Amino acid sequence: MTMKRSILAACAALAVVSFTAPAMADEAGEIKYRKSVMRSIGGHMGAIVGILKGQTGNAANLATHTQGMADLAKIAGSIFPEGSDFGETEALPAIWDKPDEFAKAVKMLQDASANLNTAAQSGDMAATGAAFGGLGKACKNCHENFREKKKQ
Amino acid sequence: MTMKRSILAACAALAVVSFTAPAMADEAGEIKYRKSVMRSIGGHMGAIVGILKGQTGNAANLATHTQGMADLAKIAGSIFPEGSDFGETEALPAIWDKPDEFAKAVKMLQDASANLNTAAQSGDMAATGAAFGGLGKACKNCHENFREKKKQ
Repeated sequence: MTMKRSILAACAALAVVSFTAPAMADEAGEIKYRKSVMRSIGGHMGAIVGILKGQTGNAANLATHTQGMADLAKIAGSIFPEGSDFGETEALPAIWDKPDEFAKAVKMLQDASANLNTAAQSGDMAATGAAFGGLGKACKNCHENFREKKKQ
Repeated sequence: MTMKRSILAACAALAVVSFTAPAMADEAGEIKYRKSVMRSIGGHMGAIVGILKGQTGNAANLATHTQGMADLAKIAGSIFPEGSDFGETEALPAIWDKPDEFAKAVKMLQDASANLNTAAQSGDMAATGAAFGGLGKACKNCHENFREKKKQ
């Protein structure tokens, strides 16, 4: 499903949402939720790259995206609940087998996102660039150690 | 490009970001930026649907997503600058031909997102469900009137 279609699907899903009898949370639902969170993170990252590279005139939106990243980083640890390690996911067992290491990786993401947001809010573009480098490392750290390798 | 790959691509792009000589903003860059913002919106919408449908145990994250939606709605009007109406986009000319109508559609999104966030922050799930319905209508309104019809 493309990204645009997924937005429409979310809207269309309104029609079948039941607030009186919610479905039980299950593995597939948790994985779907995780992918939605990651999609939002990916969107912010793409937007920040576009702004820092000067590809858009919307530099004034930078702080919205860095605040969004910082907020999403705060919930990043919660999107890998026990039992969500099978099915349509590239999450590696190491997430649950090495919880201390994974917690450190999540903390690295949270710290880097907060640093970037602080720099962006201050308007110091040199500091923002440096902080964004730190966030890139945090992304990479987690993707290299806790996610299935890319299929070529 | 899949959503996961797009996150990696954003990280990989770090290597080529130049802070001393940014590229000029152009049509393709603006469209790319717009798609990133829409991807983040779509991620939040999917996450909210997952929570409201009870597909995830992460109900505590609801307010993060509704705040994220409200923040992104505030910049939604800015992501359609003049000149970004050609190329790889499904944005219709009506956005620029009927600016008053488009502004109303954006305002509808902003109001609906703010309402949803207020309801979610209050913890009133009945109000949250109703407000989410309003947000769905705002999504649909804009997609039906200002975006190319879905190809079957």
